[in-house]
Formats: sequence, structure tokens, C-alpha cells
Amino acid sequence: MTRLRVLGFAVSVDGYGAGPRQDRDNPLGVRGPALMEWFFHTQAWREMHGETGGETGVDNDMARRGFAGIGAWILGRNMFGPVRGPWPDESWRGWWGEEPPYHTPVFVLTHHPRPPLEMAGGTVFHFVTDGIESALAQAKAAAGGRDVRLGGGAATIRQYLAAGLVDDLHLAVRPVLLGSGEPLMHGLDLHALGYECTGCVAGERATHLFLEKRA
Amino acid sequence: MTRLRVLGFAVSVDGYGAGPRQDRDNPLGVRGPALMEWFFHTQAWREMHGETGGETGVDNDMARRGFAGIGAWILGRNMFGPVRGPWPDESWRGWWGEEPPYHTPVFVLTHHPRPPLEMAGGTVFHFVTDGIESALAQAKAAAGGRDVRLGGGAATIRQYLAAGLVDDLHLAVRPVLLGSGEPLMHGLDLHALGYECTGCVAGERATHLFLEKRA
Repeated sequence: MTRLRVLGFAVSVDGYGAGPRQDRDNPLGVRGPALMEWFFHTQAWREMHGETGGETGVDNDMARRGFAGIGAWILGRNMFGPVRGPWPDESWRGWWGEEPPYHTPVFVLTHHPRPPLEMAGGTVFHFVTDGIESALAQAKAAAGGRDVRLGGGAATIRQYLAAGLVDDLHLAVRPVLLGSGEPLMHGLDLHALGYECTGCVAGERATHLFLEKRA
Repeated sequence: MTRLRVLGFAVSVDGYGAGPRQDRDNPLGVRGPALMEWFFHTQAWREMHGETGGETGVDNDMARRGFAGIGAWILGRNMFGPVRGPWPDESWRGWWGEEPPYHTPVFVLTHHPRPPLEMAGGTVFHFVTDGIESALAQAKAAAGGRDVRLGGGAATIRQYLAAGLVDDLHLAVRPVLLGSGEPLMHGLDLHALGYECTGCVAGERATHLFLEKRA
């Protein structure tokens, strides 16, 4: 059965999935890049960017797992770009250049319609305006029997968690304090929503946590 | 210089230092004992309870560090007991029986005066009614050049953090979801308050995090 999975989503020890004051210059918010330090050094990251080398080890294994068996992605609009409100034109084509790292259909949640956008390497961005359940249904249909990865951001993951739609999560907890920003779990009662923590593995630059929805 | 230290304070991965609905039957709140599982199995815990055996390893080392070099403790009133409002009498003598594990002066924050209470093994509970700064000044004076350990609970630690009075923290992050309860860091901007995360060590049953106030 196709699952909805959050994989390799980084949070700070004080629970933030992005720093404060996100904008075009700070897509992860101020101090947000510190969240990604577990990923930047891995062989997996370097390969994604056409480079050789990089570290192998626990963090690298965890990064690779996040791309295995994924047939479609869902992203919140802010993960696609800094544009707010109606699209002024179609010039914004994502943060990732002409060949994004997804290589699958990607369903972007937005209130503002836009035609699908086909990129190099198999990524096609579809803009979904009729809500998170519709995006999930479309992503599952497009995933071809593989799983759907919910990429974020934090606010989007919270919406899917509150609706009980996420099957499991792998969080990379980074030993940094952001102090403010986009909280992932604050005020969400994940126990009452049916989730439990099923594992914890120490990586080189993050502690990897596994949460699952109880059957 | 005498420091104010939080040591071995357990939190869930969703950030709670105690579960919901604390009362006499549930001093750590519902599901709260899951927070202490890193400590219950250690040699240090067993020795404190007059038993032999127990596990050695990282968690045990961390537990022992929490008692080394401590000359006085500060506790919030709920950590001392379940009594709320004025003391009806002096029959409540703490959760720990006649020989509590502190073996130092312990300053208990309360709005309701009560004479000092001397227990076996060197623990003397002093009830402080004039605020957190007074309790800290009294504890530092009593510590004889050693450090002061702030035992909790979460609400008490938050008060001292918000006032910038805590020098460092060692948190034992347990891989459990409590869902609700007493949050430790939610809504406190520890970065703005001057704290940073200086280390992270994987234990057998918890991930040990170290936070320090920047100089």
C-alpha cells in the first residue's frame, strides 16, 4: 500500500523545522541552514549535485533511504519558492535550477492555480488548489505503487499530521537551538493523534528519530 | 564560581518534561515515568536506592555527573509534593521517604511559608516564598563553593531560563512522544536568551544534549 512518509526532515533540538524570517535570501529562515548540516556532507548530497566524494556512514544511509521507493512528492508552496499570493508570471521555476532532485511528479499546495511545469530529469510540478487530501490522492495515484514523500515545510507537515494522514516520519534532530521559526510538533498532540516513537539512531551530525502511526 | 545547572533533566522528543494530569498517583504526569527510563536501569539509580547491580555505560555516567560537585538544589513546589495552596499541616515530607537522595540543602519554591524540614542523610528542605532570585542567592550561599542543581520541574526551569539565570543544561532526550504535558522549551527563545547547543552524546536509552549560556 502506498504510504505517505516524511523522510529526512530536519528539526532543531528546540523543535523548529525552519528558522525565522524566511525569504528569498533565507529559504530555510535565519540560521536554518544549520538544520541541513547533517545532509550537506553526505555522499548522497554530493551525488545529487553531480559531485564525487562526501561522507559515508549513518547520516548518508539515512539520506539515501529518503529517496528509495518514492514515486511522488508533496510540497508546501514555500518549499517551492518565495512567491506569495497569485503567481505574477511563470518565471519562478523552483529553488533547484532546471533539474530538481525529485525525478518524480511533485504536487505543490497553493491557493493559486498554475499550469503544470515540466523540468529536466523527470520532475513535473503540479499545482494543487483544492486542499491537502486532493494533493494526497493525486500523489498516490501518480506514485505507481511506490510511496509518497511529504517534503515539508513544517506547516504543511503539521496539516497532514493533524489530519492523521502521515504514515511515518524520520526526523533528523540537529544539535542546534534556533530559538524561533517554524515549529514542527509544538501544540500538536501526536500521542492522541496515534503516533509513537519507534526508534532512535545516532548519526554523525544528527540524531535520527522514527515515528509511526499505530495500526 | 558557583553555577546554576540543570542536569539529567529528561524530556520527550516532543519537548515535554512531564506528562499531563500530574497528581499524587502520577507525580510525573500520565506516561511521565517513560521519561525516567534512561535513569531507572543505571547503577547510579540502584546505588541511590541501596541496591547493587544496574547498568554501566553512557547513561550511567551521565546520571553520576548530575550529582558530582553539587552543594545545594532548587526545586519547584510540585517536585516536592502534590499539595497545592497553603500547607494544611507538616505531614507531607516529600516524595522520597525519610532519606531523600539530595544530601544537601534543598530550596523549595512556594508561595506558602513553612519551617525548614531536616531529613536523614543531610537533606534539609528550606521553603522560599520570596521568588526565584532569592532562592538562587540562598542556594549559592549554602553550596559552599560547589554548584547549585536546579531539579525542575519544567515550569521552574522555564522561569530561571527566561531570567537568564541558568548557566548550563544537560537534557536526557527520551525517544517517546508524550503528546501533551509540561513543555520545557516551547515558546522560549533560547537563542535570544543567549544559549547554544554545545554537544550531543548517544546513550543507551536517551540522547544527551548539552546547552550552555554564551559568555
